Amino acid sequence: MTVQPKSITSLQNDRIKAIRALEMRKERKETGLFVAEGTSLLVTARDNGFVPETLVYRTGSATGGIAQGLVAWALKSGVECLEVSEAVLGKLSTKDNPQSMLGVFKQRWIELPPAPRIERDAVWLALEEIRDPGNLGTILRTADAVGAAGIVLIGASCDPYSHECVRATMGSVFAVPLARVQREAFVRWLGGWQGDVVGTHLEADQDFRKVKYRAPTLLLMGSEGPGLSEPLTAACTRLVKIPMAGQLDSLNLAVATALVLYQIRSPHLTL
Amino acid sequence: MTVQPKSITSLQNDRIKAIRALEMRKERKETGLFVAEGTSLLVTARDNGFVPETLVYRTGSATGGIAQGLVAWALKSGVECLEVSEAVLGKLSTKDNPQSMLGVFKQRWIELPPAPRIERDAVWLALEEIRDPGNLGTILRTADAVGAAGIVLIGASCDPYSHECVRATMGSVFAVPLARVQREAFVRWLGGWQGDVVGTHLEADQDFRKVKYRAPTLLLMGSEGPGLSEPLTAACTRLVKIPMAGQLDSLNLAVATALVLYQIRSPHLTL
Repeated sequence: MTVQPKSITSLQNDRIKAIRALEMRKERKETGLFVAEGTSLLVTARDNGFVPETLVYRTGSATGGIAQGLVAWALKSGVECLEVSEAVLGKLSTKDNPQSMLGVFKQRWIELPPAPRIERDAVWLALEEIRDPGNLGTILRTADAVGAAGIVLIGASCDPYSHECVRATMGSVFAVPLARVQREAFVRWLGGWQGDVVGTHLEADQDFRKVKYRAPTLLLMGSEGPGLSEPLTAACTRLVKIPMAGQLDSLNLAVATALVLYQIRSPHLTL
Repeated sequence: MTVQPKSITSLQNDRIKAIRALEMRKERKETGLFVAEGTSLLVTARDNGFVPETLVYRTGSATGGIAQGLVAWALKSGVECLEVSEAVLGKLSTKDNPQSMLGVFKQRWIELPPAPRIERDAVWLALEEIRDPGNLGTILRTADAVGAAGIVLIGASCDPYSHECVRATMGSVFAVPLARVQREAFVRWLGGWQGDVVGTHLEADQDFRKVKYRAPTLLLMGSEGPGLSEPLTAACTRLVKIPMAGQLDSLNLAVATALVLYQIRSPHLTL
């Protein structure tokens, strides 16, 4: 079914207002939708089997190259295509330099697979109450880069489908499976985990670089500031620490996560 | 010389306006000043020998603990101390939850020491035209954590003394020496470098984990997006690559920098 694009120049148009409203977490929660801006993210979405509900692009911008290909794909897939004026696109964009194209997608949340059936060479990442969407986006990108099998958001997390997080993922939000779960349910799930559950902790005495991690490995990182809660610290089979010079006792959460993820996945990563 | 605090309740006060103006890069450039918020950053400043030009705190907030100690230190050091209303502090703060205290400091920029005289076990970091203040702040924090000797900002960099960057450093802006230099001058300076000058590059064929880095080592990172320019790529003695799973070809700049810095400094870092 090939559809025709629809032209919109009014900022008051209902479709435009509905897409703008997705800047609000409440609206994203109610609709289960989110927005990804820019052709690069849209290509990643397509490569990962995501088809947008709606594709919005500036009139005249899809006359060649990647943009044209994306519009042709969307039309062929029966996606609602909105050709809009620069002013309308500017209103929809969260960037100073609006991208020429954005897509509205359905969020995807997976159910956690039974822990005992997790593949042996898989690495999972779980984040307790992460608060900063930029950190979360960066962590999604890193998890993708090490080939993590999935990310579990525990408790009151920031929204991985916020504009800021999606942008920071550089597209990896479409590549890494996401689950969300409350802490108690997470701890129950962990009960079936076959390998190491690794946490970083200030009072750990094992250097994260000197540990042999039992597979499958789950890395469990605490919130910015407070770190891992007591119950989740207790759920770890192995606590490690990242050495630092001088008086410092912490790193940015995305940096700490990256260092340990790369260490755990090291044997699997080659040029 | 012990001074007396001055009480200010008007948003129109000239001192308050002058401090607010430091949110603008132009104003920071002209005055050579910057603002750091929160007692934690102020303690780090004091520990690193920074004395504020001005200390601002909420009336009644400095009656105990760390805050009281900071005010006493400032008064004893002859620092201008401004006791302000909650409304005034709210105007000065860039946070939703204003910290109870902030300091105005002189920026510090070092001259690059002659490269041949750099200590043998030192690690330096140079960043070409870094654009994102959150990334820069995170990188400063990581550089501090590995005990880097200094950071060189090359060309049109974002401002390490912006509110966003200072906050992301978590205080490390006071701990790591900063230099700034144009690209041509930097390349000349590099001419005298005794050890490896390491760059990350997509076309490198050496895994960053498998290299023995010659000391002293300088890590040179390119801008978000474009990466290292041709002239700076050519100035490297060693190009390395961070392995990634799947189709990905890049990581967040702060993450990539952290991975390589930790690798280079690995022998020096222990629990």
